Amino acid sequence: MTNPTAAMLVIGDEILSGRTRDSNMHHLAGELTARGIDLKEARMVSDDRAAIMAAVQALSQAYDHVFTSGGIGPTHDDITADSVAAAFDVPIDVRADARALLEAHYARTGTELNAARLRMARIPEGAVLIDNPVSTAPGFTLGNVHVMAGVPAIFEAMVASVLPSLTGGAALLSDSIRVDRPEGEIAGPLGLIAGRYDDLSIGCYPFQLDGAFGANVVFRGTDRGRIDAALAELRSELGL
Amino acid sequence: MTNPTAAMLVIGDEILSGRTRDSNMHHLAGELTARGIDLKEARMVSDDRAAIMAAVQALSQAYDHVFTSGGIGPTHDDITADSVAAAFDVPIDVRADARALLEAHYARTGTELNAARLRMARIPEGAVLIDNPVSTAPGFTLGNVHVMAGVPAIFEAMVASVLPSLTGGAALLSDSIRVDRPEGEIAGPLGLIAGRYDDLSIGCYPFQLDGAFGANVVFRGTDRGRIDAALAELRSELGL
Repeated sequence: MTNPTAAMLVIGDEILSGRTRDSNMHHLAGELTARGIDLKEARMVSDDRAAIMAAVQALSQAYDHVFTSGGIGPTHDDITADSVAAAFDVPIDVRADARALLEAHYARTGTELNAARLRMARIPEGAVLIDNPVSTAPGFTLGNVHVMAGVPAIFEAMVASVLPSLTGGAALLSDSIRVDRPEGEIAGPLGLIAGRYDDLSIGCYPFQLDGAFGANVVFRGTDRGRIDAALAELRSELGL
Repeated sequence: MTNPTAAMLVIGDEILSGRTRDSNMHHLAGELTARGIDLKEARMVSDDRAAIMAAVQALSQAYDHVFTSGGIGPTHDDITADSVAAAFDVPIDVRADARALLEAHYARTGTELNAARLRMARIPEGAVLIDNPVSTAPGFTLGNVHVMAGVPAIFEAMVASVLPSLTGGAALLSDSIRVDRPEGEIAGPLGLIAGRYDDLSIGCYPFQLDGAFGANVVFRGTDRGRIDAALAELRSELGL
Protein backbone atom coordinates (compact mmCIF):
# COMPACT_ATOMS: atom_id res chain seq x y z
CA MET A 1 0.00 0.00 0.00
CA THR A 2 1.35 3.39 -0.86
CA ASN A 3 0.48 6.43 1.19
CA PRO A 4 -1.74 9.24 -0.12
CA THR A 5 0.24 12.16 -1.58
CA ALA A 6 -0.11 15.87 -0.98
CA ALA A 7 1.17 19.25 -2.09
CA MET A 8 1.13 22.63 -0.40
CA LEU A 9 0.56 25.96 -2.11
CA VAL A 10 1.58 29.07 -0.16
CA ILE A 11 0.00 32.20 -1.64
CA GLY A 12 1.27 35.70 -0.95
CA ASP A 13 3.60 38.47 -2.12
CA GLU A 14 4.90 38.90 1.42
CA ILE A 15 6.63 35.50 1.35
CA LEU A 16 8.34 35.99 -2.02
CA SER A 17 9.49 39.52 -1.19
CA GLY A 18 11.27 38.19 1.88
CA ARG A 19 9.18 40.33 4.20
CA THR A 20 7.57 37.36 5.94
CA ARG A 21 8.99 33.94 6.55
CA ASP A 22 6.44 31.21 5.94
CA SER A 23 5.77 28.85 8.82
CA ASN A 24 2.62 27.15 7.56
CA MET A 25 4.41 24.76 5.24
CA HIS A 26 6.62 23.54 8.05
CA HIS A 27 3.61 23.01 10.30
CA LEU A 28 1.63 21.13 7.64
CA ALA A 29 4.66 18.96 6.78
CA GLY A 30 4.88 17.69 10.34
CA GLU A 31 1.14 17.04 10.62
CA LEU A 32 0.97 15.15 7.33
CA THR A 33 4.04 13.05 8.09
CA ALA A 34 2.49 11.98 11.39
CA ARG A 35 -0.68 10.85 9.58
CA GLY A 36 1.01 8.92 6.80
CA ILE A 37 0.26 11.42 4.04
CA ASP A 38 3.36 12.12 1.95
CA LEU A 39 4.00 15.80 1.26
CA LYS A 40 5.71 15.58 -2.14
CA GLU A 41 5.93 19.20 -3.25
CA ALA A 42 5.37 22.75 -2.07
CA ARG A 43 5.00 25.89 -4.16
CA MET A 44 4.89 29.53 -3.27
CA VAL A 45 3.31 32.02 -5.64
CA SER A 46 2.37 35.67 -5.41
CA ASP A 47 -1.12 37.19 -5.20
CA ASP A 48 -1.57 36.74 -8.94
CA ARG A 49 -4.69 35.13 -10.40
CA ALA A 50 -2.99 33.37 -13.30
CA ALA A 51 -0.19 32.04 -11.08
CA ILE A 52 -2.63 30.71 -8.47
CA MET A 53 -4.83 29.09 -11.12
CA ALA A 54 -1.90 27.39 -12.85
CA ALA A 55 -0.48 26.04 -9.59
CA VAL A 56 -3.87 24.78 -8.34
CA GLN A 57 -4.54 22.99 -11.61
CA ALA A 58 -1.08 21.39 -11.80
CA LEU A 59 -0.97 20.28 -8.17
CA SER A 60 -4.57 19.05 -7.91
CA GLN A 61 -3.99 16.81 -10.92
CA ALA A 62 -0.66 15.48 -9.69
CA TYR A 63 -1.44 14.74 -6.03
CA ASP A 64 -4.23 13.29 -3.88
CA HIS A 65 -4.56 16.45 -1.79
CA VAL A 66 -3.60 20.11 -2.14
CA PHE A 67 -3.49 22.46 0.84
CA THR A 68 -3.36 26.22 0.23
CA SER A 69 -2.63 29.02 2.70
CA GLY A 70 -3.23 32.72 2.31
CA GLY A 71 -5.38 35.17 0.40
CA ILE A 72 -8.85 34.49 1.82
CA GLY A 73 -9.27 37.65 3.93
CA PRO A 74 -11.38 40.76 3.28
CA THR A 75 -8.89 42.98 1.42
CA HIS A 76 -8.41 43.72 -2.28
CA ASP A 77 -5.33 41.45 -2.47
CA ASP A 78 -7.26 38.42 -1.19
CA ILE A 79 -8.00 36.65 -4.47
CA THR A 80 -7.46 33.01 -3.59
CA ALA A 81 -11.13 31.93 -3.43
CA ASP A 82 -11.95 33.47 -6.80
CA SER A 83 -8.76 32.05 -8.36
CA VAL A 84 -9.46 28.52 -7.09
CA ALA A 85 -13.04 28.71 -8.39
CA ALA A 86 -11.66 29.79 -11.76
CA ALA A 87 -9.11 26.96 -11.72
CA PHE A 88 -12.00 24.47 -11.42
CA ASP A 89 -14.24 26.53 -13.72
CA VAL A 90 -17.09 26.77 -11.20
CA PRO A 91 -19.11 29.88 -10.22
CA ILE A 92 -18.39 31.72 -6.99
CA ASP A 93 -20.59 34.09 -4.98
CA VAL A 94 -21.54 34.96 -1.41
CA ARG A 95 -23.03 31.73 -0.08
CA ALA A 96 -25.87 31.65 2.44
CA ASP A 97 -24.25 29.24 4.91
CA ALA A 98 -20.98 31.17 5.01
CA ARG A 99 -22.85 34.47 5.27
CA ALA A 100 -24.88 33.13 8.21
CA LEU A 101 -21.68 32.19 10.04
CA LEU A 102 -20.28 35.70 9.59
CA GLU A 103 -23.58 37.39 10.54
CA ALA A 104 -23.78 35.44 13.79
CA HIS A 105 -20.13 36.13 14.58
CA TYR A 106 -20.27 39.88 13.95
CA ALA A 107 -23.63 40.23 15.73
CA ARG A 108 -22.06 38.53 18.76
CA THR A 109 -19.07 40.87 18.71
CA GLY A 110 -21.08 43.99 17.85
CA THR A 111 -19.13 44.57 14.65
CA GLU A 112 -20.49 45.68 11.29
CA LEU A 113 -20.63 43.05 8.54
CA ASN A 114 -19.48 45.48 5.86
CA ALA A 115 -18.92 44.82 2.17
CA ALA A 116 -15.25 43.95 2.68
CA ARG A 117 -16.02 41.38 5.37
CA LEU A 118 -18.81 39.90 3.27
CA ARG A 119 -16.17 38.98 0.66
CA MET A 120 -15.09 36.26 3.10
CA ALA A 121 -18.43 34.53 2.47
CA ARG A 122 -17.58 34.10 -1.22
CA ILE A 123 -17.46 30.30 -1.62
CA PRO A 124 -17.21 28.36 -4.89
CA GLU A 125 -20.23 26.29 -5.87
CA GLY A 126 -19.96 22.72 -4.59
CA ALA A 127 -17.32 23.47 -1.95
CA VAL A 128 -17.51 22.19 1.62
CA LEU A 129 -16.77 24.72 4.36
CA ILE A 130 -13.76 24.31 6.66
CA ASP A 131 -14.40 25.29 10.26
CA ASN A 132 -12.46 28.30 11.61
CA PRO A 133 -12.66 28.24 15.42
CA VAL A 134 -10.37 31.27 15.70
CA SER A 135 -12.10 34.01 13.70
CA THR A 136 -15.14 32.30 12.10
CA ALA A 137 -14.57 33.22 8.42
CA PRO A 138 -14.41 29.72 6.90
CA GLY A 139 -12.01 28.01 4.56
CA PHE A 140 -13.34 25.49 2.06
CA THR A 141 -12.58 22.25 0.28
CA LEU A 142 -13.24 22.20 -3.46
CA GLY A 143 -12.48 18.87 -5.12
CA ASN A 144 -9.19 17.79 -3.57
CA VAL A 145 -8.07 21.35 -2.75
CA HIS A 146 -8.28 22.56 0.85
CA VAL A 147 -8.24 26.38 0.96
CA MET A 148 -7.12 27.87 4.27
CA ALA A 149 -6.07 31.16 5.84
CA GLY A 150 -2.51 32.46 5.96
CA VAL A 151 -2.41 33.71 9.55
CA PRO A 152 -0.59 30.84 11.28
CA ALA A 153 -2.98 30.44 14.24
CA ILE A 154 -5.95 30.23 11.86
CA PHE A 155 -4.13 28.02 9.34
CA GLU A 156 -3.22 25.57 12.08
CA ALA A 157 -6.77 25.49 13.43
CA MET A 158 -8.12 24.82 9.91
CA VAL A 159 -5.59 22.03 9.37
CA ALA A 160 -6.86 20.48 12.61
CA SER A 161 -10.42 20.79 11.25
CA VAL A 162 -9.59 19.11 7.94
CA LEU A 163 -7.13 16.35 8.76
CA PRO A 164 -9.46 14.01 10.69
CA SER A 165 -11.65 13.70 7.57
CA LEU A 166 -8.78 12.48 5.38
CA THR A 167 -7.66 8.90 4.99
CA GLY A 168 -4.04 8.55 6.04
CA GLY A 169 -1.54 5.82 5.42
CA ALA A 170 1.10 4.13 7.48
CA ALA A 171 2.71 6.81 9.64
CA LEU A 172 6.25 7.59 8.61
CA LEU A 173 8.63 6.67 11.42
CA SER A 174 12.11 8.04 11.72
CA ASP A 175 15.23 7.93 13.79
CA SER A 176 18.42 9.86 13.41
CA ILE A 177 22.00 9.99 14.56
CA ARG A 178 24.33 12.93 14.75
CA VAL A 179 27.82 12.17 13.49
CA ASP A 180 30.54 14.68 14.26
CA ARG A 181 32.52 13.95 11.13
CA PRO A 182 32.45 15.56 7.71
CA GLU A 183 29.88 14.12 5.33
CA GLY A 184 32.65 12.96 3.02
CA GLU A 185 33.76 10.38 5.58
CA ILE A 186 30.26 9.05 6.20
CA ALA A 187 29.23 8.90 2.56
CA GLY A 188 30.95 5.63 1.58
CA PRO A 189 29.55 3.30 4.26
CA LEU A 190 26.22 5.12 4.25
CA GLY A 191 25.78 4.60 0.51
CA LEU A 192 26.26 0.84 0.94
CA ILE A 193 23.71 0.71 3.76
CA ALA A 194 21.23 2.76 1.70
CA GLY A 195 21.62 0.17 -1.07
CA ARG A 196 20.81 -2.69 1.32
CA TYR A 197 17.86 -0.84 2.90
CA ASP A 198 16.11 0.46 -0.18
CA ASP A 199 12.74 0.27 1.61
CA LEU A 200 13.95 3.14 3.82
CA SER A 201 14.56 6.75 2.88
CA ILE A 202 17.99 7.57 4.27
CA GLY A 203 19.09 11.20 4.24
CA CYS A 204 22.36 12.82 5.26
CA TYR A 205 22.06 16.47 6.31
CA PRO A 206 25.34 18.26 6.87
CA PHE A 207 25.80 21.08 9.32
CA GLN A 208 28.54 23.39 10.41
CA LEU A 209 28.96 24.19 14.09
CA ASP A 210 31.74 26.27 15.58
CA GLY A 211 33.80 25.73 12.46
CA ALA A 212 33.54 21.94 12.48
CA PHE A 213 31.51 19.91 9.99
CA GLY A 214 29.12 17.17 10.98
CA ALA A 215 25.95 15.56 9.70
CA ASN A 216 22.63 14.25 10.90
CA VAL A 217 21.75 10.97 9.27
CA VAL A 218 18.00 10.33 9.21
CA PHE A 219 16.36 6.96 8.54
CA ARG A 220 12.69 7.10 7.53
CA GLY A 221 10.27 4.28 6.87
CA THR A 222 7.18 2.51 8.12
CA ASP A 223 8.93 -0.48 9.77
CA ARG A 224 10.57 0.28 13.10
CA GLY A 225 12.68 -2.89 12.99
CA ARG A 226 14.25 -1.98 9.66
CA ILE A 227 15.07 1.53 10.88
CA ASP A 228 16.68 0.15 14.04
CA ALA A 229 18.71 -2.37 12.02
CA ALA A 230 20.01 0.19 9.52
CA LEU A 231 20.96 2.58 12.30
CA ALA A 232 22.79 -0.21 14.13
CA GLU A 233 24.75 -1.05 10.97
CA LEU A 234 25.82 2.57 10.57
CA ARG A 235 26.96 2.77 14.19
CA SER A 236 28.95 -0.41 13.73
CA GLU A 237 30.54 0.72 10.44
CA LEU A 238 31.56 4.05 11.94
CA GLY A 239 32.63 2.59 15.30
CA LEU A 240 30.13 4.73 17.22
CA MET B 1 11.53 48.63 -17.99
CA THR B 2 10.42 45.52 -16.15
CA ASN B 3 12.69 43.82 -13.65
CA PRO B 4 14.29 40.43 -14.33
CA THR B 5 12.34 37.50 -12.84
CA ALA B 6 13.53 34.60 -10.74
CA ALA B 7 12.39 31.36 -9.15
CA MET B 8 13.84 29.32 -6.33
CA LEU B 9 13.93 25.52 -6.13
CA VAL B 10 14.58 24.01 -2.69
CA ILE B 11 15.61 20.36 -2.96
CA GLY B 12 15.46 17.92 -0.08
CA ASP B 13 13.31 15.34 1.71
CA GLU B 14 14.14 16.95 5.05
CA ILE B 15 12.14 20.07 4.20
CA LEU B 16 9.03 18.23 3.03
CA SER B 17 9.03 15.81 5.97
CA GLY B 18 8.94 18.76 8.35
CA ARG B 19 12.25 17.79 9.92
CA THR B 20 14.04 20.94 8.80
CA ARG B 21 12.64 24.39 8.23
CA ASP B 22 14.03 26.01 5.12
CA SER B 23 15.75 29.35 5.59
CA ASN B 24 17.45 29.68 2.21
CA MET B 25 14.35 30.85 0.35
CA HIS B 26 13.79 33.63 2.84
CA HIS B 27 17.44 34.73 2.54
CA LEU B 28 17.38 34.70 -1.26
CA ALA B 29 14.07 36.58 -1.35
CA GLY B 30 15.56 39.47 0.59
CA GLU B 31 18.74 39.58 -1.51
CA LEU B 32 16.86 39.53 -4.82
CA THR B 33 14.35 42.17 -3.73
CA ALA B 34 17.22 44.49 -2.79
CA ARG B 35 18.75 44.05 -6.28
CA GLY B 36 15.57 44.57 -8.26
CA ILE B 37 15.15 40.96 -9.32
CA ASP B 38 11.56 39.78 -8.78
CA LEU B 39 11.24 36.40 -7.09
CA LYS B 40 7.99 35.16 -8.63
CA GLU B 41 7.80 31.57 -7.47
CA ALA B 42 9.42 29.03 -5.18
CA ARG B 43 9.12 25.27 -5.24
CA MET B 44 10.24 22.57 -2.87
CA VAL B 45 10.72 19.02 -4.10
CA SER B 46 12.19 15.88 -2.59
CA ASP B 47 15.46 14.15 -3.54
CA ASP B 48 13.81 12.60 -6.56
CA ARG B 49 15.41 12.76 -9.99
CA ALA B 50 12.19 13.07 -11.98
CA ALA B 51 10.80 15.74 -9.66
CA ILE B 52 14.00 17.80 -9.81
CA MET B 53 14.21 17.52 -13.61
CA ALA B 54 10.59 18.56 -14.11
CA ALA B 55 10.90 21.56 -11.78
CA VAL B 56 14.20 22.73 -13.33
CA GLN B 57 12.75 22.51 -16.84
CA ALA B 58 9.52 24.32 -15.96
CA LEU B 59 11.16 27.10 -13.94
CA SER B 60 14.12 27.71 -16.27
CA GLN B 61 11.70 28.20 -19.17
CA ALA B 62 9.36 30.48 -17.23
CA TYR B 63 11.81 32.82 -15.48
CA ASP B 64 15.06 34.68 -16.19
CA HIS B 65 16.93 32.99 -13.34
CA VAL B 66 16.50 29.86 -11.25
CA PHE B 67 18.33 29.35 -7.95
CA THR B 68 18.49 25.88 -6.43
CA SER B 69 19.60 24.84 -2.96
CA GLY B 70 20.48 21.39 -1.68
CA GLY B 71 21.66 18.02 -2.90
CA ILE B 72 25.21 18.76 -4.08
CA GLY B 73 27.14 17.07 -1.26
CA PRO B 74 29.05 13.75 -1.26
CA THR B 75 26.33 11.32 -0.13
CA HIS B 76 24.09 8.91 -2.05
CA ASP B 77 21.07 11.22 -1.71
CA ASP B 78 22.90 14.15 -3.37
CA ILE B 79 21.53 13.90 -6.89
CA THR B 80 20.97 17.53 -7.83
CA ALA B 81 23.95 17.97 -10.18
CA ASP B 82 23.11 14.84 -12.16
CA SER B 83 19.41 15.77 -12.28
CA VAL B 84 20.12 19.30 -13.53
CA ALA B 85 22.46 17.93 -16.22
CA ALA B 86 19.70 15.54 -17.28
CA ALA B 87 17.17 18.37 -17.33
CA PHE B 88 19.36 20.20 -19.86
CA ASP B 89 20.33 16.95 -21.60
CA VAL B 90 24.08 17.57 -21.24
CA PRO B 91 26.77 15.09 -20.06
CA ILE B 92 28.15 15.25 -16.53
CA ASP B 93 31.41 13.90 -15.13
CA VAL B 94 34.19 14.78 -12.72
CA ARG B 95 35.63 17.96 -14.22
CA ALA B 96 39.33 18.85 -14.01
CA ASP B 97 38.89 22.38 -12.66
CA ALA B 98 36.51 21.30 -9.91
CA ARG B 99 38.71 18.34 -9.06
CA ALA B 100 41.75 20.61 -8.79
CA LEU B 101 39.89 22.84 -6.30
CA LEU B 102 39.02 19.84 -4.13
CA GLU B 103 42.54 18.36 -4.37
CA ALA B 104 44.12 21.61 -3.21
CA HIS B 105 41.58 21.99 -0.40
CA TYR B 106 41.94 18.47 0.96
CA ALA B 107 45.76 18.54 0.61
CA ARG B 108 45.76 21.73 2.66
CA THR B 109 43.60 20.19 5.38
CA GLY B 110 45.32 16.78 5.32
CA THR B 111 42.09 14.99 4.41
CA GLU B 112 41.64 12.17 1.93
CA LEU B 113 39.89 13.01 -1.35
CA ASN B 114 37.91 9.77 -1.38
CA ALA B 115 35.39 8.57 -3.96
CA ALA B 116 32.45 10.13 -2.11
CA ARG B 117 34.10 13.58 -1.95
CA LEU B 118 35.12 13.33 -5.60
CA ARG B 119 31.40 13.22 -6.49
CA MET B 120 31.35 16.92 -5.59
CA ALA B 121 33.56 17.56 -8.64
CA ARG B 122 30.84 16.21 -10.97
CA ILE B 123 29.95 19.26 -13.06
CA PRO B 124 27.72 19.34 -16.16
CA GLU B 125 29.42 20.15 -19.46
CA GLY B 126 29.29 23.86 -20.20
CA ALA B 127 28.60 24.95 -16.63
CA VAL B 128 30.44 27.81 -14.91
CA LEU B 129 31.64 27.13 -11.35
CA ILE B 130 30.26 29.10 -8.41
CA ASP B 131 32.83 29.96 -5.76
CA ASN B 132 32.38 28.38 -2.32
CA PRO B 133 34.52 30.30 0.16
CA VAL B 134 33.23 28.21 3.07
CA SER B 135 34.06 24.62 2.17
CA THR B 136 35.50 24.80 -1.40
CA ALA B 137 33.23 22.27 -3.17
CA PRO B 138 31.77 24.50 -5.88
CA GLY B 139 28.26 25.18 -7.09
CA PHE B 140 27.68 25.85 -10.77
CA THR B 141 25.60 27.84 -13.21
CA LEU B 142 24.20 25.92 -16.17
CA GLY B 143 22.19 28.05 -18.56
CA ASN B 144 20.07 30.24 -16.31
CA VAL B 145 20.12 27.79 -13.38
CA HIS B 146 22.36 28.52 -10.41
CA VAL B 147 22.98 25.34 -8.40
CA MET B 148 23.99 25.90 -4.80
CA ALA B 149 24.45 24.06 -1.51
CA GLY B 150 21.73 23.56 1.08
CA VAL B 151 23.74 24.30 4.23
CA PRO B 152 22.66 27.89 4.94
CA ALA B 153 26.15 29.34 5.54
CA ILE B 154 27.36 27.87 2.23
CA PHE B 155 24.19 28.78 0.35
CA GLU B 156 24.46 32.38 1.49
CA ALA B 157 28.13 32.55 0.51
CA MET B 158 27.32 31.17 -2.94
CA VAL B 159 24.48 33.68 -3.40
CA ALA B 160 27.00 36.41 -2.59
CA SER B 161 29.32 34.91 -5.25
CA VAL B 162 26.63 34.80 -7.93
CA LEU B 163 24.56 37.94 -7.46
CA PRO B 164 27.16 40.55 -8.51
CA SER B 165 27.31 38.93 -11.97
CA LEU B 166 23.58 39.32 -12.59
CA THR B 167 21.87 42.34 -14.06
CA GLY B 168 19.36 43.72 -11.63
CA GLY B 169 16.50 46.13 -12.09
CA ALA B 170 15.11 49.02 -10.14
CA ALA B 171 15.30 48.09 -6.48
CA LEU B 172 11.90 47.46 -4.95
CA LEU B 173 11.22 50.03 -2.25
CA SER B 174 8.69 49.54 0.47
CA ASP B 175 7.13 51.16 3.49
CA SER B 176 4.57 49.80 5.88
CA ILE B 177 2.20 50.84 8.59
CA ARG B 178 0.80 48.78 11.43
CA VAL B 179 -2.89 49.33 12.01
CA ASP B 180 -4.38 48.00 15.23
CA ARG B 181 -7.77 47.35 13.73
CA PRO B 182 -9.27 44.25 12.15
CA GLU B 183 -8.57 43.90 8.45
CA GLY B 184 -12.29 44.16 7.73
CA GLU B 185 -12.27 47.82 8.78
CA ILE B 186 -9.24 48.71 6.71
CA ALA B 187 -10.31 46.86 3.59
CA GLY B 188 -12.77 49.39 2.17
CA PRO B 189 -10.57 52.53 2.11
CA LEU B 190 -7.49 50.46 1.28
CA GLY B 191 -9.16 48.96 -1.77
CA LEU B 192 -9.94 52.45 -3.11
CA ILE B 193 -6.35 53.58 -2.58
CA ALA B 194 -5.04 50.42 -4.27
CA GLY B 195 -7.20 51.30 -7.28
CA ARG B 196 -5.73 54.81 -7.50
CA TYR B 197 -2.14 53.58 -7.02
CA ASP B 198 -2.08 50.66 -9.40
CA ASP B 199 1.64 51.20 -10.04
CA LEU B 200 2.22 50.05 -6.45
CA SER B 201 1.80 46.60 -4.97
CA ILE B 202 -0.21 47.11 -1.80
CA GLY B 203 -0.57 44.18 0.58
CA CYS B 204 -2.52 43.83 3.80
CA TYR B 205 -1.16 41.21 6.20
CA PRO B 206 -3.34 40.45 9.19
CA PHE B 207 -1.99 39.34 12.53
CA GLN B 208 -3.36 38.33 15.87
CA LEU B 209 -1.64 39.57 19.02
CA ASP B 210 -2.86 38.97 22.55
CA GLY B 211 -6.31 38.17 21.22
CA ALA B 212 -6.67 41.37 19.19
CA PHE B 213 -6.60 41.54 15.40
CA GLY B 214 -4.51 44.02 13.45
CA ALA B 215 -2.79 44.26 10.09
CA ASN B 216 0.42 45.46 8.54
CA VAL B 217 -0.21 47.32 5.33
CA VAL B 218 2.79 47.24 2.99
CA PHE B 219 3.31 49.53 0.00
CA ARG B 220 5.85 48.33 -2.57
CA GLY B 221 7.09 50.04 -5.70
CA THR B 222 10.05 51.69 -7.34
CA ASP B 223 8.99 55.33 -6.79
CA ARG B 224 9.48 56.60 -3.25
CA GLY B 225 7.16 59.59 -3.80
CA ARG B 226 4.23 57.41 -4.83
CA ILE B 227 4.74 55.12 -1.81
CA ASP B 228 4.81 58.14 0.53
CA ALA B 229 1.66 59.59 -1.06
CA ALA B 230 -0.33 56.35 -0.82
CA LEU B 231 0.71 55.86 2.79
CA ALA B 232 -0.32 59.44 3.63
CA GLU B 233 -3.73 58.86 2.05
CA LEU B 234 -4.28 55.74 4.14
CA ARG B 235 -3.30 57.55 7.33
CA SER B 236 -5.72 60.33 6.46
CA GLU B 237 -8.58 57.96 5.60
CA LEU B 238 -8.15 56.03 8.86
CA GLY B 239 -7.51 59.13 10.97
CA LEU B 240 -4.08 57.89 12.06
